[in-house]
Order: sequence, then C-alpha cells, then structure tokens
Amino acid sequence: LVPAPASMAMAEKGNHRHFMQKEIYEQPEVVGRTLSAYVNAVSGRVRPREGVDFSKMTRLHIIGCGTASYAGQIAEYWFEGIAGLPVKVDIASEFRYRNPAFLEGDAALFISQSGETADTLEALRLCKAAGIVTIALVNSPHSSMAREADIVAPTLAGPEIGVASTKAFTCQLSALAALVVLAGAQRGRLSAEEQAGHIANLMAVPSLMAAALKVEQAIDRLASELAQASIVLYLGRNEFFPLALEGALKLKEISYIHAEGYAAGELKHGPIALIEDDVAVIVIAPHDALFAKTRSSIQEVRARGARVIAITDRPGADELDGETSAQLLLPRLTGMAAPIVSAVAVQLLAYYVAVHKGTDVDQPRNLAKSVTVE
Amino acid sequence: LVPAPASMAMAEKGNHRHFMQKEIYEQPEVVGRTLSAYVNAVSGRVRPREGVDFSKMTRLHIIGCGTASYAGQIAEYWFEGIAGLPVKVDIASEFRYRNPAFLEGDAALFISQSGETADTLEALRLCKAAGIVTIALVNSPHSSMAREADIVAPTLAGPEIGVASTKAFTCQLSALAALVVLAGAQRGRLSAEEQAGHIANLMAVPSLMAAALKVEQAIDRLASELAQASIVLYLGRNEFFPLALEGALKLKEISYIHAEGYAAGELKHGPIALIEDDVAVIVIAPHDALFAKTRSSIQEVRARGARVIAITDRPGADELDGETSAQLLLPRLTGMAAPIVSAVAVQLLAYYVAVHKGTDVDQPRNLAKSVTVE
Repeated sequence: LVPAPASMAMAEKGNHRHFMQKEIYEQPEVVGRTLSAYVNAVSGRVRPREGVDFSKMTRLHIIGCGTASYAGQIAEYWFEGIAGLPVKVDIASEFRYRNPAFLEGDAALFISQSGETADTLEALRLCKAAGIVTIALVNSPHSSMAREADIVAPTLAGPEIGVASTKAFTCQLSALAALVVLAGAQRGRLSAEEQAGHIANLMAVPSLMAAALKVEQAIDRLASELAQASIVLYLGRNEFFPLALEGALKLKEISYIHAEGYAAGELKHGPIALIEDDVAVIVIAPHDALFAKTRSSIQEVRARGARVIAITDRPGADELDGETSAQLLLPRLTGMAAPIVSAVAVQLLAYYVAVHKGTDVDQPRNLAKSVTVE
Repeated sequence: LVPAPASMAMAEKGNHRHFMQKEIYEQPEVVGRTLSAYVNAVSGRVRPREGVDFSKMTRLHIIGCGTASYAGQIAEYWFEGIAGLPVKVDIASEFRYRNPAFLEGDAALFISQSGETADTLEALRLCKAAGIVTIALVNSPHSSMAREADIVAPTLAGPEIGVASTKAFTCQLSALAALVVLAGAQRGRLSAEEQAGHIANLMAVPSLMAAALKVEQAIDRLASELAQASIVLYLGRNEFFPLALEGALKLKEISYIHAEGYAAGELKHGPIALIEDDVAVIVIAPHDALFAKTRSSIQEVRARGARVIAITDRPGADELDGETSAQLLLPRLTGMAAPIVSAVAVQLLAYYVAVHKGTDVDQPRNLAKSVTVE
C-alpha cells in the first residue's frame, strides 16, 4: 500500500500545520545534535578538525547566498571579536565576478544547506583554483560542495522541506560558533576557562531555544495586525543587524511583505525618512551593552509615528515599558547563544504573519528550495 | 543691504527648482575639479600623496555611513579587482562596536562629506588608537576628520545644501578611482599604459556626465508613474550593486518610497517572492560582461508581473527591446567611469519622483544634512 502524497506529507508534519513550523520546533534537537558533532562533552573543548588550523590563517572569507550569507555575517562579528581572526563576507554571486584580492594564508568557508547552490559552488571552485584552503559548511554530506571542498564542516539539521530556511540557519550558526571557539583556542585568544565559558554558553542553546519557542502565543496574537503592514523595517545592532536582515528576508519570502533589515545606527542616514504612521518597525533589542543605543532608535521612530515591536528580554521590556506597541519576550541571553536563540523569534514572526495572510508557507511563490542555477 | 534668506536661496539655486537639482547639474564641473586635484594632467599619472604607500598596505578598511559607505563599496570592487588590494568595507556605527580584527599593515580610509559624521569620526579615532594609518576622504577641509586623520584626501564638491547627497558622492567616487590608479601603480599591478588608460577613462567622466544628464526628460516622463509605486526593488551586479543600494537610498530619502537595493544574483534567494503586478523593479543594466546575467534577472521579474525600468545604454536597450516597461539611456560607459556616470541617472530618478510626489526635496522629513550625533 502506497500512501497518497498528501497524507504522507501530513504524517511527516506530525502535529504541525506546515513543515516550516515543524522545522522551527525541531531546532532545540538539531542544534544540540550539530553542537555535539563539534564539542567534546568530556573535555568541554571543541574538537580540532583535520586540516583546519586557524592559527595559520591570515583571513577567512565566508561566502554564501541569502540566509547562509547572513549566518556568515553573524559569524564575522564572532570570529573578529572573539578569535581576532579577520573575516570578509561575500555574496557568492558577487564574489564570483569581482576578481577578489587574496592574501597569503587566506582560507575560505562556504555556507550552503544543500551544498549545491550554484553561485556558492562556483565561488568554491574559484578559491580552489586560486590555491585557497576551502571549507564547506553544508547540511548535505553527499553534495558537490562536500565532495569538492578540502574540509567539510557538517550541520546535522536533517532534511529541511520548507523553502524558507530555519533549522539549517541555526545549525549553521551553531557550527560556526563552535569553530569560533576552536579558532580562539588555536590562535591563543581564549584561555581554557574562556573556552569552557563559551562552550557552556553554546550547550545551553537547545534549552534556551525551547524556552524561546514559548514566545509563539504572543507572536500569534501580534501577527494578524502585522499582516496588515505594507512596510516593515527590521533593525538591530551588532550580530542582531544580520539577524534583522534574516528576519526581513523571512518576511519577504513567505509573507510577501516588503521588509528591509537595517543596522540601527544607519537609521538617521536615510531610512528614517520612510517612517510614518503605517510603517511597522521591528527592533531586536536585547538588554546588552548596546541596549541604550537601540532604545534611542526606538524612541526616534516612535516619535515619528511608527508602530514599534521590540524583540527583547525581561530587563529590556521593563526599560522599554510604554515606548513600544508590542514586546516579544525572549529568555535573558548572552554570548554567541544570543543571536542563535533570538532567531526563533524572527522565524516565528514571519511564519505567523504568513499564516494570517494565508500564503503557501512551505512553497512560497517564485522560490525554489535550492538555487542550483545562476 | 542684506537680502532676505528666501531670495538669497533663490539666487543661489540659479535656474534650478531645488538645490538638489542644482547640485546634480554641478557634477561635471566639480568631478572635473576633484579629478584635477589628483591627476597630473601633464604626465597623465595620479600624483603620489604624501604618506600614502599602497605598496606597503596589507589591507584597506573603508568606513562610512549611508551614501558614503556605498561609495566605499563601489571602490572595494575597484581596489580589489584593479589594484589587487584587499578591502573591507564597514558601516561606521557597526565598526565602532564590533571589536574589529586588524592585520599588520592595515590602513583605513574614512568617507564623510562633512568630515563630522559622529560614528565615522569615532571609527577614525578607534583606528588611530590601534596604530592604523588613517586617511580622511572629506569635502570639508577644516573638519574634525581632516584635522585628526594622518592623511587628507579631498573632494572638491563645494558646499552641498540638499540633504540627499549627490555631487559629494560622485566626487568621492572620482577621488577613490584616482587612488585606485595610484594603488595599482604603486603595487605594480598597472603598467604605465594601463594607468594612462584608466586616467583617460576618468578624465572623460565630466563630459560623459554632461551627456548623461540628457536622460532628464525621459526620467521626468517616467517619474509620475513611478511615484505611484508602493515598492521599488533596485537591482545591479558588480559596482552597480552598491549603486543600486544608493539609488534605493535616494528614493527613500526624498520620495519616501520603500525602495530596496539588491544584488541581482540574490533575487532568487528571497526577494523574488515579493514580485507582483504593482512592484516596480529598476535594473541597472549596462551592456557589459555581466549583461546576459542581468538580463536574465529582468526576464524573471517581468515574467512575474513586475514593471521593469532598465538603466542601460544603446546596445543594452536594443537587446532588451520589448522586455522592459521603460528604458533610460545612458552613454556607452566603460571602466571606473561607468558607475560614476550612471549615478546621475539614479539621482535624477529619485529627484523627479520626489518632485512628482511634492515632497520637500532639499529638506526631507526626519533627516539632517550631517549626522553629528550617534
């Protein structure tokens, strides 16, 4: 007996309405699994990866498309800030054709869920031809990139069916965070104690993600209203800037709302002119060292009539009391865990807005799961 | 006798309706003046600048905000592709707080019309404190950045009154292009003949800009329709990708239309989901080596109902015949002149859309000319 495709799909989705929702909920598990592929639970250290010596690296290029390139941008903050390793992030379709300049000792890391993204694969081949050490961070172990790269760094997200990437993204971030700790260790930037601190921070991600998923009800309530917005600006600072880009991309992909991500500090250099009453501004505003600056952006857009939704935590929410239209509360987060766990909120927000708009969440119009042609 | 402020402003605008329009029209003159500050007309070479030795540079950081950072992104293609000098571009407000990693021999160039942009100035101070050679590319010779940087690279745009930067941007690009030729010479990447070729290409910019300004009438006709668009996607590849970002920023700043710039190759990785009948897509599509790829993006968005406006040239227009809703014809452009001259079209497009919408072009809502606070 062969089940009809529809009922098979039903079964695979379990209790979830869409694959995307199921995949969002799988994240605590698959992120845990991915981290355990990198971290030695006994020693509390990141296992060295054969062929990867960050101490000998001059610079790391990180190359990807779409969501994968945003994972790279988040990792750029980490590699530079924590491991002191210079990073340059490129969009693969631009990197391929721009005649990039290399330095002796450069290495390049390519991020792709499928391992088949056409532009990223060609960028990998370009780097190999230039004699650059290549690392493929892929979810498909038998993909072209996995075969062709010098080194494979896996994500263990399992099959991702929803066209809009969710669990692959957070698994990419988790693997990258582990590599940052390895880089910090190999480059003598992190003491054993500091490494252990970062590892403990990362190993808490699965349970923090599970806690973060509880924001779902508040997001569901908010989504019907946000679904009416014609324009959304998504703001963040530091690692939350690329996360804002990812949040905006998710909204575009599945809810068809024109959302744009912006570094909060760039607001006054142009986009604030857009602010009027019907504009929604989503601000990722954890109560961290840059909170006061992010809060000032909130006050500026609110004073000009924007509807402000803050993705924040308890201390942030208390300070922002009365300054926002809505608050989405995440657990208190620190270190590299913060953007990884916060991703849950931007994913759920896009998901529920799309559900309220009635779009085809798992198969949004015009998009393919893997872009295997240019 | 002291003239009333209104009549003084009238006089200063000459025959132009707004300062922005006047400043767009001044570009052939001020770009020529800026180039002559860098190029020795007798030898046909770029004059060395005291303290600048690109041959000893490992990497060049380019830092700015808004339009200035897009000038930096365009120069990144040039420095890497033509002079083989690795570049990293940062938004100043992010650079300041992200604990950037430096390499021995790094230098940093800061771009600001006013020389007073708060975040850029603080980024300069951060680099000075880190022992990095600092270069200020500024339009105000007596500004804080000009005083504090190790080296000043001037733009000679004259006073820019319109809040939305136009002539300062193209003067920044012209100065950067001259520095790229110097870098190529100092790094042994450009033969004397190649240098002369680039210089000839740049010295033609003023006359090409004057020719490009003739696109004004076609833009004026197009603008009333574009003013109705709720969403604009602005696409480009290579140096025309940051120019698309600048074009979108200009539209945001003065016409309040939500326009977003995108690398054309990223279209399939998300933003194509936005395309429906009321979306306008502006594509910068010169008939260069990447034309076929850009054309394929045009066909994709058009097939999904977008109204496509191509900024192109005669050969491009011939090939795109019937594939676009409107074409804006620029002169045939090559080399570094191409994005500089093409800037005229994106500026005029934003200007005429704003005029049709009746916004306060020179003093758009919520914006200040120089952002001297964080």
